[in-house]
Amino acid sequence: MINFQSDYLEGCHPKILEKLVETNFRQSSGYGNDEYSKDAIFKIKAACNKEDIDVHFLVGGTQANSIIIASILRPHQGVVSAISGHISTNEAGAIEATGHKVLTLPSEDGKIRAEQVEELYYAHWNSPIREAVVQPGMVYISNPTEMGTLYTKAELESLSKVCRDLNLPLFLDGARLGYGLTSPYNDVTLKDIAHLCDVFYIGGTKCGALFGEAVVISSNPLKRDFRYIMKQRGGVLAKGRLLGIQFGTLFEDELYLKICGSAVEYALKLRQAFEEKGIELYGNSLANQQFPILTNTQMDVLRKNYGFEVWGKLDENYTITRFCTSWATKLEDIEALIKDVKLL
Amino acid sequence: MINFQSDYLEGCHPKILEKLVETNFRQSSGYGNDEYSKDAIFKIKAACNKEDIDVHFLVGGTQANSIIIASILRPHQGVVSAISGHISTNEAGAIEATGHKVLTLPSEDGKIRAEQVEELYYAHWNSPIREAVVQPGMVYISNPTEMGTLYTKAELESLSKVCRDLNLPLFLDGARLGYGLTSPYNDVTLKDIAHLCDVFYIGGTKCGALFGEAVVISSNPLKRDFRYIMKQRGGVLAKGRLLGIQFGTLFEDELYLKICGSAVEYALKLRQAFEEKGIELYGNSLANQQFPILTNTQMDVLRKNYGFEVWGKLDENYTITRFCTSWATKLEDIEALIKDVKLL
Amino acid sequence: MINFQSDYLEGCHPKILEKLVETNFRQSSGYGNDEYSKDAIFKIKAACNKEDIDVHFLVGGTQANSIIIASILRPHQGVVSAISGHISTNEAGAIEATGHKVLTLPSEDGKIRAEQVEELYYAHWNSPIREAVVQPGMVYISNPTEMGTLYTKAELESLSKVCRDLNLPLFLDGARLGYGLTSPYNDVTLKDIAHLCDVFYIGGTKCGALFGEAVVISSNPLKRDFRYIMKQRGGVLAKGRLLGIQFGTLFEDELYLKICGSAVEYALKLRQAFEEKGIELYGNSLANQQFPILTNTQMDVLRKNYGFEVWGKLDENYTITRFCTSWATKLEDIEALIKDVKLL
Amino acid sequence: MINFQSDYLEGCHPKILEKLVETNFRQSSGYGNDEYSKDAIFKIKAACNKEDIDVHFLVGGTQANSIIIASILRPHQGVVSAISGHISTNEAGAIEATGHKVLTLPSEDGKIRAEQVEELYYAHWNSPIREAVVQPGMVYISNPTEMGTLYTKAELESLSKVCRDLNLPLFLDGARLGYGLTSPYNDVTLKDIAHLCDVFYIGGTKCGALFGEAVVISSNPLKRDFRYIMKQRGGVLAKGRLLGIQFGTLFEDELYLKICGSAVEYALKLRQAFEEKGIELYGNSLANQQFPILTNTQMDVLRKNYGFEVWGKLDENYTITRFCTSWATKLEDIEALIKDVKLL
Repeated sequence: MINFQSDYLEGCHPKILEKLVETNFRQSSGYGNDEYSKDAIFKIKAACNKEDIDVHFLVGGTQANSIIIASILRPHQGVVSAISGHISTNEAGAIEATGHKVLTLPSEDGKIRAEQVEELYYAHWNSPIREAVVQPGMVYISNPTEMGTLYTKAELESLSKVCRDLNLPLFLDGARLGYGLTSPYNDVTLKDIAHLCDVFYIGGTKCGALFGEAVVISSNPLKRDFRYIMKQRGGVLAKGRLLGIQFGTLFEDELYLKICGSAVEYALKLRQAFEEKGIELYGNSLANQQFPILTNTQMDVLRKNYGFEVWGKLDENYTITRFCTSWATKLEDIEALIKDVKLL
Repeated sequence: MINFQSDYLEGCHPKILEKLVETNFRQSSGYGNDEYSKDAIFKIKAACNKEDIDVHFLVGGTQANSIIIASILRPHQGVVSAISGHISTNEAGAIEATGHKVLTLPSEDGKIRAEQVEELYYAHWNSPIREAVVQPGMVYISNPTEMGTLYTKAELESLSKVCRDLNLPLFLDGARLGYGLTSPYNDVTLKDIAHLCDVFYIGGTKCGALFGEAVVISSNPLKRDFRYIMKQRGGVLAKGRLLGIQFGTLFEDELYLKICGSAVEYALKLRQAFEEKGIELYGNSLANQQFPILTNTQMDVLRKNYGFEVWGKLDENYTITRFCTSWATKLEDIEALIKDVKLL
Repeated sequence: MINFQSDYLEGCHPKILEKLVETNFRQSSGYGNDEYSKDAIFKIKAACNKEDIDVHFLVGGTQANSIIIASILRPHQGVVSAISGHISTNEAGAIEATGHKVLTLPSEDGKIRAEQVEELYYAHWNSPIREAVVQPGMVYISNPTEMGTLYTKAELESLSKVCRDLNLPLFLDGARLGYGLTSPYNDVTLKDIAHLCDVFYIGGTKCGALFGEAVVISSNPLKRDFRYIMKQRGGVLAKGRLLGIQFGTLFEDELYLKICGSAVEYALKLRQAFEEKGIELYGNSLANQQFPILTNTQMDVLRKNYGFEVWGKLDENYTITRFCTSWATKLEDIEALIKDVKLL
Repeated sequence: MINFQSDYLEGCHPKILEKLVETNFRQSSGYGNDEYSKDAIFKIKAACNKEDIDVHFLVGGTQANSIIIASILRPHQGVVSAISGHISTNEAGAIEATGHKVLTLPSEDGKIRAEQVEELYYAHWNSPIREAVVQPGMVYISNPTEMGTLYTKAELESLSKVCRDLNLPLFLDGARLGYGLTSPYNDVTLKDIAHLCDVFYIGGTKCGALFGEAVVISSNPLKRDFRYIMKQRGGVLAKGRLLGIQFGTLFEDELYLKICGSAVEYALKLRQAFEEKGIELYGNSLANQQFPILTNTQMDVLRKNYGFEVWGKLDENYTITRFCTSWATKLEDIEALIKDVKLL
């Protein structure tokens, strides 16, 4: 059985384990005040081509999303998100547990447009009863989105401009950022993101690390006291070195991009195979997740040898499925799957 | 420089790293639904000699404390703790951030007594204005305490009885539990704790793991929906296997107790050395932390070769310091320190 | 200028003021432990024909909604509501500020159906990733709804049955309950509500009181410690007598129903006048609010002598407006308005 | 039976009721956008001799305390208070329910000193582990304090200076402000408070109103969006006119000060009577509450004709009691009590 159910099925890139073994008995300060974390921060600043950013390491995505949002909003404000956004659908109420409403915008492709944000903003501020309504306080996007789509540089610039004009911090959830940056369809760089977003994170858990997300804060007002809120919400690891070592390794010689790049390459080959077979794909995913719409028979056939996820029923006959590649996916496995798709 | 500043200066016991390397490319389900986690739960149930417990793995102590407390209390209730308890002093307001007050009891030695809980309880319920006051909803203790003291079995039984009589769930924070269980002065077993407490956790971060705490829920009413609250507060690791592997290794052949035991042995030797030198120790720590009260000169001398923590100034001439041993402390290092203590 | 903008434009029914004047210098206990409150509770129990209910008085609607919901849900649970429900749209994030998500159901007429609740419930519990999603914990409805529609007894029975089967407490927001109970189209009594809902409130602010809502808790498990949560959230009035006097007066000789009844009668006459004029009404409001869809010209004409609210633009030519009657509306005023509608 | 148990035993000053009756059928806008509220704000600005303040009306003290504090603090900050402060002891966890810890300072007389605030502040910021501790974010005092003591102008100036130097907003809870301002021992004016505090409130509930507190915000950064947070936490009354009418009446011709002044005069006469009788008073209350320390026999004698509160047992023989006067206390009643004190 070869599994394509998610991008967190394996441990981590072997170089990380090597480094953990190598450094295991060296003593270091706790809570992120260690040399490994400093080194990782140095490398991330270089990769972002931006010195005046703060970098913090958190353990996981729910934690990153709720800590970042809690650190920005005042009590009466909410966070604007696509209705399909992770914080709206699958964070178990983590945002609401910090006291804030998720203000959802309709979205067909998982992305939100600058004009939608503008419209929501003015609808609020022009309302005579605005104090009875949650005030928009920041904007959340993810790239790639939940549906695997990618923001173009033009779209991101336009969103960033509107957000800055309206004084709404722009937060980009990059849980799968490596798979977005390395898509051949992508025209956005890490540097662009560091300049256009006020805060974002570089996903580790799904992109080669054992666990961990690197939060980058570009906006000065958002930097103050961030570590307090991390600590308060359980986001400061006693052995912060673990995160430093992982991100230091991933950002050595562009390892992060290299290992994510192969995953995307494989996923797009798989996409092509489905398309050539006349099997429609749900949405226009350009990264490491693909959503073929399969018949029950097709699912039964593939299920014999492959693990994949049921995303949702489209109708009686068709089901949206999800196949994920990752940094750990082997060429031979994806080739086997493609061969079997051709035989469907 | 040999460092005794804390018990989280190194990585983890080498067997854990071996196991991580060995299993790295095996695919497993996410979010704790993996074979390694099941194996670790099986072993912990055996170690507790109790089948009807729920075991969950969390990443760190702040997370464990706030998730457990949030899962138990109703909005108007508070958690009873010694004034020196970690949740009262050093959790960055994590408990209050979940909406609950910490109701503190005075304590000289870090422990609270059954009678204190009883008194607080009846003071509340007999008050004519009790609705203006936070209702006690559960009791928090740690073992070892912040000061390294240990609850005797008799004390724990008596606390447990009062808590059950008053319907106040008893929660034991075991961040350093391994060092408590293996003290020669200890008469409490893991089985006792599993039977006397309603919920507790077995600390991994400070006791040989890279990170992680194993939460054990004995009380049936507290089990329901715990995983939802874990998820909501960022406590579910995507690669849950990491925690399963660590605790599975620590609970294989009593590794956990073995490696903690040597740390305590070393710490008590160090205690003896200070005592023999006529240097007083702050409190009666019976586990891996020792708090010698040093003069400035003594501190200066020891600082040349050893790292340790300043715990607090006692007066102009004396400072309370903290020396920590851990599973990773080497015999030669503690011997060197003892030799230098003798030379003070 | 005669104003129909809302049902809280005037003070209160004169009998209440008389009673306040009469009792002003009598000394009474604070926080609701007074004779007036006891008398009011006695009368409300009689009106509900139910002895085993708890009655509490709160100052306003936002307070009632957030206190009731906070008292029921566990941290990981959300409240199910129509997407048009007041707690979803116009409570300024009050529910989220208590840590809970509002789980919205689509609704054309402001009501939700038993089958919708059932479907949401099973969708949640059958989901393999349910822990990543907010668990439905209770159901919120209002009667009349935001749109003035009314639940039939059959609908309410069916909703109540589903809620009890699924162990989801049913909460009815009765901010305008008096206007619902006295509609000629209504077949639900206060007794029915007290038996079918687990908790509800009888609105005073919009129905003849200066301010205040009477919360009725029928379900035993929901009664415990409710006053603590009231106190914690600022819902216990020092001079509780003020609420007791008001509700005691309103429930003397069915004053509440009498004064609300005339408001509904007037509103339905107005509805008829619009209909006869060929002016469409938005939704099927059967109580004291009516939503005629007017042209700009019609609005301009009516605006000369009458105050009313702009509810929302329907399209370029038509605007939904709201005309409210209340316990204080005078016959001559409604007759003047009807005359002018006829002249449109 | 003449009751001195609290200062909220009666309704309100008759002029308020007159005004409520007189205006009852005038239609006005809701939510504080009415002429009466504007008039009251105008008068309060005049009384404070300060134009650039924001004035908002809230219903009660718990509400005022929690809304003001929630509007100021960031999530990781706490509010500094005397350990005897109302928010620390008797707000039912209202502050913690907004996510914030109350950071208590020891106090013998209910007041806190500038130096204590300074010390706490620097202890925090100089701590190497400060991120593990709640950051002081504002300072709460009340005047009169819970114990009836009064801040001198010099003390208030000194506290204000330190708070401004350290960027900690200073909040004064004035639930009984009228009784403080009119004490012959007081040297602080309303103008002083408006200039020295960043936010405070003028208590109505205990000082002649039916209910209500007038919040005054002097500090510009604290003004923004205050009404949103009021609305979110149930603090915006639909018929805001009720609060406007009350405060408009109390601030007409200094009625507020006049009616509070007689209460203080009576209380101090009572104090003198106890002192002359050789009965000690607990603390140095200079306002409308007095705390005589009585024997059981004395209590039994006085209980026959007077209501008063048991404040706490001092020892086996002595009990601290509380006698409150208010705007409604009659001269004949206080004279009767004094006569009976003399006969003890």
